[in-house]
Amino acid sequence: MSHLRYDVSTHDWVIFAPERESRPHDFHAPPPNPEEEKAWCPFCPGHEGDTRAELLRVPDPADPGAWSVRVVPNKFPALAMEAEGGFSELGRHFQRFEGYGAHEVIIESPEHFRPLALLPQAQIERILQALQMRYLELMRNRKLRSIILFKNHGVAAGTSLRHPHWQILATPLVPRLLRMKHAISTGYFDRNFRCLHQVLLQEELAAGVRVIARNDAFAAVAPYASHLPYQVRILPLSFQSSFSQATPIQRALLASILKDVLARLRTALGDPAYNLTFVSPPLGDEDEDYFLWHIDVLPRLFTPAGFEMGSGMSINPVLPETAAERLRAAAPADA
Amino acid sequence: MSHLRYDVSTHDWVIFAPERESRPHDFHAPPPNPEEEKAWCPFCPGHEGDTRAELLRVPDPADPGAWSVRVVPNKFPALAMEAEGGFSELGRHFQRFEGYGAHEVIIESPEHFRPLALLPQAQIERILQALQMRYLELMRNRKLRSIILFKNHGVAAGTSLRHPHWQILATPLVPRLLRMKHAISTGYFDRNFRCLHQVLLQEELAAGVRVIARNDAFAAVAPYASHLPYQVRILPLSFQSSFSQATPIQRALLASILKDVLARLRTALGDPAYNLTFVSPPLGDEDEDYFLWHIDVLPRLFTPAGFEMGSGMSINPVLPETAAERLRAAAPADA
Repeated sequence: MSHLRYDVSTHDWVIFAPERESRPHDFHAPPPNPEEEKAWCPFCPGHEGDTRAELLRVPDPADPGAWSVRVVPNKFPALAMEAEGGFSELGRHFQRFEGYGAHEVIIESPEHFRPLALLPQAQIERILQALQMRYLELMRNRKLRSIILFKNHGVAAGTSLRHPHWQILATPLVPRLLRMKHAISTGYFDRNFRCLHQVLLQEELAAGVRVIARNDAFAAVAPYASHLPYQVRILPLSFQSSFSQATPIQRALLASILKDVLARLRTALGDPAYNLTFVSPPLGDEDEDYFLWHIDVLPRLFTPAGFEMGSGMSINPVLPETAAERLRAAAPADA
Repeated sequence: MSHLRYDVSTHDWVIFAPERESRPHDFHAPPPNPEEEKAWCPFCPGHEGDTRAELLRVPDPADPGAWSVRVVPNKFPALAMEAEGGFSELGRHFQRFEGYGAHEVIIESPEHFRPLALLPQAQIERILQALQMRYLELMRNRKLRSIILFKNHGVAAGTSLRHPHWQILATPLVPRLLRMKHAISTGYFDRNFRCLHQVLLQEELAAGVRVIARNDAFAAVAPYASHLPYQVRILPLSFQSSFSQATPIQRALLASILKDVLARLRTALGDPAYNLTFVSPPLGDEDEDYFLWHIDVLPRLFTPAGFEMGSGMSINPVLPETAAERLRAAAPADA
């Protein structure tokens, strides 16, 4: 069972999950042949018994007996609902919290080799619907404080299994990085009576040079101070504090712009590794006016080195204006 | 020329260095033959003209005509002393600072293929002396606020050139992560009249289970809330706020424990990629009592994925007690 430990020198909680040292990886060198890889894959159709008990199943509209999206608990969870979640002190500065929380896997589709960028928009809508349903369910649990929705694409982004999937980690505390972002946003709101992220989006739309795509509900921009090359942020055009509030029409438009952005990255960079993360307020703050939820698309083109690890600062070799220009020019041909 | 941009939503400065997009890498697949690689290497003896003008040269004690350590400006600098360092606002929330600072390379020895762990202790002492001389020189520059000494070993740690080297980046502002660590340490000092890092070290020495090695001046521990598997922190046993104050005897004992720790990591894990970073107070605080300088050895065994990127939290699959036990058992055979 996992537990969390408090780093009193940085105010971070760190999750310790020793059983994850032995979790499976299907990226081997040399790669096995595709049929062998699918025969082994716990996320492929026919292997439903290899996962833990299903939390959600979205049927295939064309074949109601089949599934199009499945949500299952992670078999090697970093946090688990079965844990007690007790707090203890092993010494004046050695605090520990048992590993209570949720760790779920959202299997994107039955197709082992088809990445998110190449799925039909309707399938991406179903994935977003499944993510939102799980978010809404976990939101009701008062022992949880924060929900992180994320996706890893490619080995350089930390994927351990190729079959496309998202993950949800719901934590019994608010991670320091998110607390800090929220503290900055609430501080700004208290001074200015406006949401900082909405003001930044307005300035980006006015400047124009870093805008990549836009539809009736969302804009995709390369933020002014992008920490990573080709970082893309997708934000709602109308104020909304949490993805949990997105309507079916918004989910459809989000699926459309997300597919467009990922397809442009493929055209410009040739299937780069990337992480996707939803940035949300802490649980309980969904009705507050200070935070605009968004998705960060984080390409993993360079390895952060000692300077980044030691200082927390990023060195970005690609200006966001350049990234936006290249991505605007990259027609999503293979989408 | 590079510049820095302020991320108003996280309070981070990000360095933009477009010329670094085209910097050379000598890790090719398949690797070229060793003689070809050395013939190309700008850090090998005979190629001194391929680097920018030398900042420091430590002669080879066995052959005063030859060098044993060289320090040169980085050819693809993230920050440069030639920059003006002016601050400007391009919009209410778009702040920019020109890329003033220092970016130097410390060439560890003339040997292209010999890693730090396998250098003689006397050579490691010379490297530490060169690092300290540069630190002392840069400390005197009042336009600099923070000095980051670091080293990247292995491709997974972000190395672009194999010939073993360290780097120094001196920034015109204090990175947010360091400001935060110092704020936590000063807050602790103000409440407790003691240095937090010294108290933590005493607790680690008393607990014992996470201590890896110790000599008359330094201890190496796997910290209680290690963010990364096999993370090792090397700290002075007597209070000292900055590496700039280390005496020759301390440098010798630091060389000894650093070599010991790196050799144990090689024995236990088989030449893992790692970063080394010196953690120091902001410039000007070298005489304050709140901070104990230290070195973090950060093995890069796993790729941080979407959860870590989105939340800032780490998932560590190896307990520091386990890491310490394995490293204590790993005799530094090839050292």
